[in-house]
Amino acid sequence: MGRIVVEVMPKPEILDPQGKAVAGALPRLGLSQFTGVRQGKRFELSVDGPVTEELLEAARQAAGTALSNPIIEDVVGVHEAEEN
Amino acid sequence: MGRIVVEVMPKPEILDPQGKAVAGALPRLGLSQFTGVRQGKRFELSVDGPVTEELLEAARQAAGTALSNPIIEDVVGVHEAEEN
Repeated sequence: MGRIVVEVMPKPEILDPQGKAVAGALPRLGLSQFTGVRQGKRFELSVDGPVTEELLEAARQAAGTALSNPIIEDVVGVHEAEEN
Repeated sequence: MGRIVVEVMPKPEILDPQGKAVAGALPRLGLSQFTGVRQGKRFELSVDGPVTEELLEAARQAAGTALSNPIIEDVVGVHEAEEN
C-alpha cells in the first residue's frame, strides 16, 4: 500500500493566527530561537499498490481542489511518503 | 534566514474526522483512486541564519510540546525546509 503526502501552507500574505499563537507560546517554554511560525496542513493519501505518476497527478488535482483553498493557501508539496 | 519544517499526524488509532470528510469528498470530484485520507499539521519555524543541529534539537523540543499533543499525535518529521 502506497502513501502520497500533500503539503499545504497559508500564502505568505495571509495572516496565520494559529502560527502567531504558537510563535508567542514558544518563548514561554524557553524556546526563543524562532523568529516566526506558520501553520499549515499535511495530508496522507493511501492508495492500493505502488505510487505511480498517474496517482501523483490525481493527488495534485486533489491538492488543488479538495485539500486546499487556492485563494488563501499554496500547495507546497505533493510526493510519495518516505517509509517511517 | 533558515526554515525548519515540523510534521505532525494523528496517531493511527485516533479517529480523524477531517480526513474522513476529505476521503468522502474526493470520489464526488472524480478522484476514486484513494483508499484513505489522514489530515495532520505542517509547521514552518523561521530562524535567523542557517539551520544548525542545535536549532533542530530546539525544534524537536517544540514539536513534542507546543506543536503536538503526544496523547493523540505523532511527530513524523523535523527537518530543514527544502528551497522552494
